[in-house]
Amino acid sequence: MAFLNENYLKLQAGYLFPQIARRVKEFCEANQDVAERVIRCGIGDVTEALPAAAVDAMHRAVEELGHRETFRGYGHEQGYEFLRSKIAQQDYRERGMDISDDEIFISDGSKSDCGYILDILGHQNKIAITDPVYPVYVDTNVMAGHTGPAMENGGYEGIVYLPCRAENGFVPEPPSAHADLVYLCFPNNPTGTVASREQLTRWVDYAREHKALLLYDAAYEAYISEPEIPHSIYEIPGALNCAIEFRSFSKTGGFTGVRCGFTVMPKTVPAQTEDGRSLPLHPLWHRRWSTKANSVSYPVQRGAEALYSEAGKAQVRALLEHYMGNARILRDAASGVGLQVYGGTNAPYIWVQTPAGTSSWEMFDRMLHELHVVITPGSGFGSCGEGYVRISAFNSRENAVEVARRLQILR
Amino acid sequence: MAFLNENYLKLQAGYLFPQIARRVKEFCEANQDVAERVIRCGIGDVTEALPAAAVDAMHRAVEELGHRETFRGYGHEQGYEFLRSKIAQQDYRERGMDISDDEIFISDGSKSDCGYILDILGHQNKIAITDPVYPVYVDTNVMAGHTGPAMENGGYEGIVYLPCRAENGFVPEPPSAHADLVYLCFPNNPTGTVASREQLTRWVDYAREHKALLLYDAAYEAYISEPEIPHSIYEIPGALNCAIEFRSFSKTGGFTGVRCGFTVMPKTVPAQTEDGRSLPLHPLWHRRWSTKANSVSYPVQRGAEALYSEAGKAQVRALLEHYMGNARILRDAASGVGLQVYGGTNAPYIWVQTPAGTSSWEMFDRMLHELHVVITPGSGFGSCGEGYVRISAFNSRENAVEVARRLQILR
Repeated sequence: MAFLNENYLKLQAGYLFPQIARRVKEFCEANQDVAERVIRCGIGDVTEALPAAAVDAMHRAVEELGHRETFRGYGHEQGYEFLRSKIAQQDYRERGMDISDDEIFISDGSKSDCGYILDILGHQNKIAITDPVYPVYVDTNVMAGHTGPAMENGGYEGIVYLPCRAENGFVPEPPSAHADLVYLCFPNNPTGTVASREQLTRWVDYAREHKALLLYDAAYEAYISEPEIPHSIYEIPGALNCAIEFRSFSKTGGFTGVRCGFTVMPKTVPAQTEDGRSLPLHPLWHRRWSTKANSVSYPVQRGAEALYSEAGKAQVRALLEHYMGNARILRDAASGVGLQVYGGTNAPYIWVQTPAGTSSWEMFDRMLHELHVVITPGSGFGSCGEGYVRISAFNSRENAVEVARRLQILR
Repeated sequence: MAFLNENYLKLQAGYLFPQIARRVKEFCEANQDVAERVIRCGIGDVTEALPAAAVDAMHRAVEELGHRETFRGYGHEQGYEFLRSKIAQQDYRERGMDISDDEIFISDGSKSDCGYILDILGHQNKIAITDPVYPVYVDTNVMAGHTGPAMENGGYEGIVYLPCRAENGFVPEPPSAHADLVYLCFPNNPTGTVASREQLTRWVDYAREHKALLLYDAAYEAYISEPEIPHSIYEIPGALNCAIEFRSFSKTGGFTGVRCGFTVMPKTVPAQTEDGRSLPLHPLWHRRWSTKANSVSYPVQRGAEALYSEAGKAQVRALLEHYMGNARILRDAASGVGLQVYGGTNAPYIWVQTPAGTSSWEMFDRMLHELHVVITPGSGFGSCGEGYVRISAFNSRENAVEVARRLQILR
């Protein structure tokens, strides 16, 4: 009989967000009188309309497809030039980073890319991952067989966990242990914290010393408000030799349903063979896309391109300001009832310490049952997330204000 | 230093179609006077406008996203219910096959799915693949480390190749050797041939006897004109216990640039663990999508849904008739100049035997240089494809007629 990938059997419970969705569904079915009052601040999903520039561009692209003269079939597997060049130019070269168009690879989102990247990497790599963390980094490594079985605390054997706690400002220092692959995400999901230039420099130094690869998830970079905080890992000297960066239009252009993101794979990033030869990863990544995909829907790529127009940029800024306005309201309200609050300044997530003696899931249940507000239990992001919950600022202003009002119940 | 996936280094040359594109580009740059005359019958890419029903549905969906009241963010990772149910109902249940909505998994195309499926399967499986074949099946297995190094003939050690030649009508009988995974594709790309109910029944019997898994690529099923030929592997009794089917909207709705397809994963298809436990693959596949993807763009899924409307179905039929009209013209022309021709009756591909002593790439070059027609060398699909070329019927009628005219040069 055909064999299955037994690594999947190591995975604990369901993936976090479907699990939350089930609990909310059960609550709503059992409490139909209040079901309509439930406000979702759990999954980090945008709520506001797609920017008009993207809507217009997608309409135009759909119309093109509807006429044989302007119809387009297969595009380049790595993405259309028109989009790759806009990204490389505006997100990188104009900001002093030397990234060429063909180092940009278009995908349907950075969630996908975080998994795909393992396709081109060896199974021998020692993996370091922050804790708490976006579950996809861990779970995709479990699936790929890069870990041992699950441990009591929900983690997996074989992974080097990097604890992120209040004491280190939720930004871990490089470990003394060796790692080959290090996942970093700043602004961080779930903690909402950012890493300074000095902190990132220490990580690049670590990567160069250990010849490690940094997998840098910058999906939330647009939310950075403090000018001295780096938006890209490539702002750090040396990163072009040791870092791969993931970005997304999900949280900038509101593309969670439209689906588009990209990976930056500099040609100068190497990895090694078993016998010690050092080879650039770029040709492998290029080949992965040629063989395993046909790139992203043409109208979607046109929509993403439109976010780089003057109108698009202004509309994205307005969206960011809207969500960060919510973040301020939620942050102030949670602080106001005496909760210890982190994040929410350079990221659309508020990381809230639960009252002493209250677990993350207990706080989740209390928020759902008493406040009718869905949040995300911190422990769902890793054992160091226990004792915290994440509140997402992705909502209407009305809902953010209402959640702030309901938080008074916790006073 | 981080390790790379060395299996990528086993891959031979570039993926076929980018390689053809390079040769055509070089020819056109060196022969600018005739560059405009070049007609592309190489890559199987559609040329006609997207069906109006899909265009309209995509416009409506884009418009929905442009208003906060109707905005949609993340959808179900496995695809929207509205599309899964249409597929299960119209493609399967109405045709007597017992497939439930949640056995349909929406993707951005069957090329992707053919690679993704390996995520949930073990590395111990013995792989059987037809020769010639769509290169993606082989290359994704090479990348996943399921093969040895490349051999002299372009194949890879460790794969059980199933020769498809004129002698067996290009439909292989099950081998005497054991295989755990068998890739089958009917109507076949590249040969354009189909398998009869009896032939497919022998494959299902083989799968049940060997407890093997059939990976059945039915991307071209809509092109079947002969009523007795099965469109789905699930028309064969027993297949619900041993087969996974891949389908695409690329060649029905002209979605090569829009990107949408699906996999049918019946809950009754098992695979085994190392210690011999038999488990259904469906939960693993479901988990793969939950963890590694956020499904397909909402407007794209609405576009695909529209292909199931009455208007959409009529427009798809018109497209199919157009391309199959081309196939007849090309088939007749190639036959008319004395070439031995296969396919083109139940598939949009004509599989043409090269004149004695002429290799596939020689025929490719001759067609490019003398006729200014791009075709695909059969050897690019595997060693048994040597001595053949594939002519694609995806073109305008005008171009098909012109290619037929130019074929006279070969007389």
